[in-house]
Amino acid sequence: MSGCVIQVINPNTSREMTETIGSAARRAAHAGTEIRAVCASHGAPSIEGHVDEAIAALGVLEQIRQGKAQGVHGHVIACFGDPGLLAARELAAAPVVGIAEAAMHMATLVATRFSIVTTLPRTLVIARHLLHQYGFERHCAALHAIDLPVLALEDGQGVAQQKVREQCIQAKQQDGSGAIVLGCGGMADLAGELTRELEIPVIDGVSAAVKLVESLVGMGLTTSKHGDLDYPLPKPLTGPFSQLR
Amino acid sequence: MSGCVIQVINPNTSREMTETIGSAARRAAHAGTEIRAVCASHGAPSIEGHVDEAIAALGVLEQIRQGKAQGVHGHVIACFGDPGLLAARELAAAPVVGIAEAAMHMATLVATRFSIVTTLPRTLVIARHLLHQYGFERHCAALHAIDLPVLALEDGQGVAQQKVREQCIQAKQQDGSGAIVLGCGGMADLAGELTRELEIPVIDGVSAAVKLVESLVGMGLTTSKHGDLDYPLPKPLTGPFSQLR
Amino acid sequence: MSGCVIQVINPNTSREMTETIGSAARRAAHAGTEIRAVCASHGAPSIEGHVDEAIAALGVLEQIRQGKAQGVHGHVIACFGDPGLLAARELAAAPVVGIAEAAMHMATLVATRFSIVTTLPRTLVIARHLLHQYGFERHCAALHAIDLPVLALEDGQGVAQQKVREQCIQAKQQDGSGAIVLGCGGMADLAGELTRELEIPVIDGVSAAVKLVESLVGMGLTTSKHGDLDYPLPKPLTGPFSQLR
Amino acid sequence: MSGCVIQVINPNTSREMTETIGSAARRAAHAGTEIRAVCASHGAPSIEGHVDEAIAALGVLEQIRQGKAQGVHGHVIACFGDPGLLAARELAAAPVVGIAEAAMHMATLVATRFSIVTTLPRTLVIARHLLHQYGFERHCAALHAIDLPVLALEDGQGVAQQKVREQCIQAKQQDGSGAIVLGCGGMADLAGELTRELEIPVIDGVSAAVKLVESLVGMGLTTSKHGDLDYPLPKPLTGPFSQLR
Amino acid sequence: MSGCVIQVINPNTSREMTETIGSAARRAAHAGTEIRAVCASHGAPSIEGHVDEAIAALGVLEQIRQGKAQGVHGHVIACFGDPGLLAARELAAAPVVGIAEAAMHMATLVATRFSIVTTLPRTLVIARHLLHQYGFERHCAALHAIDLPVLALEDGQGVAQQKVREQCIQAKQQDGSGAIVLGCGGMADLAGELTRELEIPVIDGVSAAVKLVESLVGMGLTTSKHGDLDYPLPKPLTGPFSQLR
Amino acid sequence: MSGCVIQVINPNTSREMTETIGSAARRAAHAGTEIRAVCASHGAPSIEGHVDEAIAALGVLEQIRQGKAQGVHGHVIACFGDPGLLAARELAAAPVVGIAEAAMHMATLVATRFSIVTTLPRTLVIARHLLHQYGFERHCAALHAIDLPVLALEDGQGVAQQKVREQCIQAKQQDGSGAIVLGCGGMADLAGELTRELEIPVIDGVSAAVKLVESLVGMGLTTSKHGDLDYPLPKPLTGPFSQLR
Repeated sequence: MSGCVIQVINPNTSREMTETIGSAARRAAHAGTEIRAVCASHGAPSIEGHVDEAIAALGVLEQIRQGKAQGVHGHVIACFGDPGLLAARELAAAPVVGIAEAAMHMATLVATRFSIVTTLPRTLVIARHLLHQYGFERHCAALHAIDLPVLALEDGQGVAQQKVREQCIQAKQQDGSGAIVLGCGGMADLAGELTRELEIPVIDGVSAAVKLVESLVGMGLTTSKHGDLDYPLPKPLTGPFSQLR
Repeated sequence: MSGCVIQVINPNTSREMTETIGSAARRAAHAGTEIRAVCASHGAPSIEGHVDEAIAALGVLEQIRQGKAQGVHGHVIACFGDPGLLAARELAAAPVVGIAEAAMHMATLVATRFSIVTTLPRTLVIARHLLHQYGFERHCAALHAIDLPVLALEDGQGVAQQKVREQCIQAKQQDGSGAIVLGCGGMADLAGELTRELEIPVIDGVSAAVKLVESLVGMGLTTSKHGDLDYPLPKPLTGPFSQLR
Repeated sequence: MSGCVIQVINPNTSREMTETIGSAARRAAHAGTEIRAVCASHGAPSIEGHVDEAIAALGVLEQIRQGKAQGVHGHVIACFGDPGLLAARELAAAPVVGIAEAAMHMATLVATRFSIVTTLPRTLVIARHLLHQYGFERHCAALHAIDLPVLALEDGQGVAQQKVREQCIQAKQQDGSGAIVLGCGGMADLAGELTRELEIPVIDGVSAAVKLVESLVGMGLTTSKHGDLDYPLPKPLTGPFSQLR
Repeated sequence: MSGCVIQVINPNTSREMTETIGSAARRAAHAGTEIRAVCASHGAPSIEGHVDEAIAALGVLEQIRQGKAQGVHGHVIACFGDPGLLAARELAAAPVVGIAEAAMHMATLVATRFSIVTTLPRTLVIARHLLHQYGFERHCAALHAIDLPVLALEDGQGVAQQKVREQCIQAKQQDGSGAIVLGCGGMADLAGELTRELEIPVIDGVSAAVKLVESLVGMGLTTSKHGDLDYPLPKPLTGPFSQLR
Repeated sequence: MSGCVIQVINPNTSREMTETIGSAARRAAHAGTEIRAVCASHGAPSIEGHVDEAIAALGVLEQIRQGKAQGVHGHVIACFGDPGLLAARELAAAPVVGIAEAAMHMATLVATRFSIVTTLPRTLVIARHLLHQYGFERHCAALHAIDLPVLALEDGQGVAQQKVREQCIQAKQQDGSGAIVLGCGGMADLAGELTRELEIPVIDGVSAAVKLVESLVGMGLTTSKHGDLDYPLPKPLTGPFSQLR
Repeated sequence: MSGCVIQVINPNTSREMTETIGSAARRAAHAGTEIRAVCASHGAPSIEGHVDEAIAALGVLEQIRQGKAQGVHGHVIACFGDPGLLAARELAAAPVVGIAEAAMHMATLVATRFSIVTTLPRTLVIARHLLHQYGFERHCAALHAIDLPVLALEDGQGVAQQKVREQCIQAKQQDGSGAIVLGCGGMADLAGELTRELEIPVIDGVSAAVKLVESLVGMGLTTSKHGDLDYPLPKPLTGPFSQLR
């Protein structure tokens, strides 16, 4: 994989979370892979609902365009709602993988069912929709929310991390699941430790997505340009969107 | 319904299509309903893929915010992909209805299965995802594309309209469907005529959405603010998104 | 909608419930809409199971035939099991809408998931089958039964109404739903008050169905006569069924 | 199974078809089983749509009540739409099996997928709904209609029978199915011959239902009276329905 | 059914369980049916996971081959996971029915939903997969495990039997199911007694499968050899598999 | 990934195919990954049906046990039916990935829908069952069979390869899919060339599975031993199965 460059896009504007995500991505990446962790130049500091997601999608597209111009070999969308995923695939030439799909795919490879632990209850609907869209509805035994906002994961106090740990323990005991998916990019650094402590695979989507992009690159596969993921039709975009193509 | 004001949002920037949509909305509306047809101030002139949809979603939100400030009683998203629908519901206080969902709901009330006739083949995936999300997958017998871009419907030549008619005839003969859903806001003015000529319900989503918004308003129902469609959490938005809240 | 006549059919023989339903229908209807609330001339005083539903279907057909002869513009089947719905659509020229489907459709427009509150536990299976048939299985988070018979809603004591209220509160707190669907025509008069008190959309199917029929009429749509909802084939019917055609 | 009495209910009023069905039932039954083939005392001469089905359901209930009074050990509903099935189960103490479900269940035991050959295209929707309700949607590869009315099977000319044969041959060649389900009680006498000629299991629901009822009786199983199939609540029924309980 | 010979294959090597299963099969069979209860000549003494199932499938195939050579009229696979079912159908000329599918099919004929009571929690995934494969996912309200190994049913102490009884009572009270499916061949002798005591159909798959095989034989139906269940292609098998064809 | 050893198990006994598979695996693997391509010591020379699959599952387990003893870091099951997958996961400590699931997962990352091209029509049912089990039913637009046996891919004449190419071209033109999944381990060497020639991602499961195993190893994830994939319970296995544990 030497010389492989993967752009890891944090769709929100939080620098701390971009750091967390970038570190996790680098830990997961091969020695020869370069990780370029970026975040949306504008948007929301955290993604906790549908409006945030709509904004995030534009941030993702802006970064995809830049990464494409730089010739990166693949892109990761590092927010658990996979905002803008299909749009990003349209725009990109290289593979694009979202962290929610990545974590879910990986979970189905090591367990017959998994649980999800995420942040605010209001984001559960997003995870539920993704499960349905990706075909993993029956593979998910239960969804849990720690009921703290995303940025609580970055406040340095560890309360959110402790709640994640508690929810993981509860999920292991109650759900009949064989694996746990962490439902937020900001939890990326917890997976390894929790996997070891709880003795159950605890899966971080950032790492998963980096590995899947590396895998696609290694197989010589890029986003299909035959059919409905072909490049967007050229058309005059106006206002803040004018630089999108 | 006297005094009811419905904002009909064309998520693209085409004035002609906004006219077509506005006219169809007015024809469908009650005497006492005021239709305010608007379009995105910035974005793409037509919505024919996932990138266009991501852009359109922002245009929708911008208009929802303005309509909300004006105190409208309901909003219609007049693009067959229902771009930004859940985000719009989060942002809005009043009901929000997309024209794709509206047409599909209505179709299930007059037939056991329906067919969809849309524009470019690359947009079929969007319709398919909506059918799946709304629960109408089994109620749709087939999807057809006229293989012309959206704006061909506004070029004044009638070629696209003729192709829509041909596809509707074919759908009626082959699909075993009892109704046809027109899969583009720009086809809004064709429904009545085709319904009469083909003797099968041909459903325009713009009219359908206007009637559904009037219905919700008449029932005193607004978008639920309990749970995952509650207003977005307040957070500092930057750049072009800063005026969104 | 001036001059629109909607026949609201209570499929059971209870006069009190026909009153309740008729009142709710009139409150929901436009000024120009005339509501003709009728009930089955023969049958069961309440519909609480499959046998009751089979009987109710015939009462519905009898009334559809009469309404059609009177030239009404639309029909509502005002029992939460939507008994005889497809048969009624076959027989009718005008649109026919059931109150269960109507309430469920409306609920999906204002919330991502809804709960149902109905009467006896034995009727839950009927609601479950309808959710499955209409495609709304995933949109329903939970079903609740007050465990009182339908006619308890008409005994003037208010115990049943109080139980409905309690179940709605419980549903709001526990189900993660954004809206509540009232699962019985006899609850039609409770929706407005509960919506206001509980601050969550509580949806009555009678109102919803009236609005949907008005909407279809306003769009010029009638039940499809192309395909499997075409008028019944003429054939010699005997006994109590002889007057059905 | 000695002494076992099975009531085979033809839900329409055609004597010829009752004969066809009764004969098929007797051929399928054990030596010790007595078949009582009856038909609705009133109703329609054939069942080819939703109105016919609603009427048929009442005929079924009337006969179930009589069979129950006679102490039969089980009931078969011998019309491919299984009209009134759940209502019949409510009313009956003994097992009740419909011929559509019976044929479908059996088909899944001898092949990975089956095709259905039925009469009029307008009845396909009924078969499709049953597949969905019973869970066999994915087990059915295709549905075929001979486009002749049910009673053409009883006109003694053999044209309908020939069309059934042709559709079975076509289904075998094109659908990738391993078995064929005959979609009408009036086709009951064709299964054996077609099975031998076409060298593929061709399944008649009448025989299948008789065997399933014998099986349930043999296992000492009766319709569950715990929960939603419990006997109907006692209530004053009026008019033609007054004798139903 | 006189002269009908059914081979009942216990896929594990436990003689006691083969006895239990054989007795249940004989009680369920017609007077004229001969039951040949056999077990795998080699393999595992109980089937409690995927590896056990893979081993059991070979034991099943070995016995199918022998039964076929003896000219039996049908085969039953008497382990609740239905191990090797489709492979057995490929190999066999006669009908093959698994006890899990048999019990589930029968349950849907007497109740709208059923519960399953099985042995170890780790086998629940197998039952869940079967429900999904057979199309009965929605017909199963809940799954229960007594948390004792299969062979506890054969230790003569009755503790396992008592736990089965307790779980059945709990299922009846809590699940809203109308029937209970016993999820282990070793529970075959409990069904009758529990059905009587709990007043709810408690279904044993061994009896159910015997009746279904008798039914198929009585209808003259055998496993389809048209398409994907045709006999295996002849090919040189080596090692312990060499005698399989 | 230096020092990573992946056992690639060809579940049939064909040396040629083991070579083809091993070569493809090596081409896909990282420089630091060692591929150990093995095949079942006994069994069938090709897997083309359910009996072959049942036999193959045992061959897989035998090799998993050996690979585990050797301390490999992961296992690939290189047959498109993923025979014995869950059993292998039970037995293994390391990750286990099947080539069918691997190819399907990867396909969903580069296209909205994919087509499958496999060998004999009789194996289509296996692919269909896997799509259903993995949740990818809706992501697969169509299945194609070249109608040649698996070993035709190893006869050195290229006829089978040409047929694969033709079916891929047809799939690209007709199915509306954005990617093609090759449905046989013996096609592993064709993916790269077809991807380049047809300008659509053509995905080989062997490469995909190797990359997924490398990914899981890189993430520190192993098969979950919490719950239903825990090691098999210790029990006395007899006959050819005695060495399995």
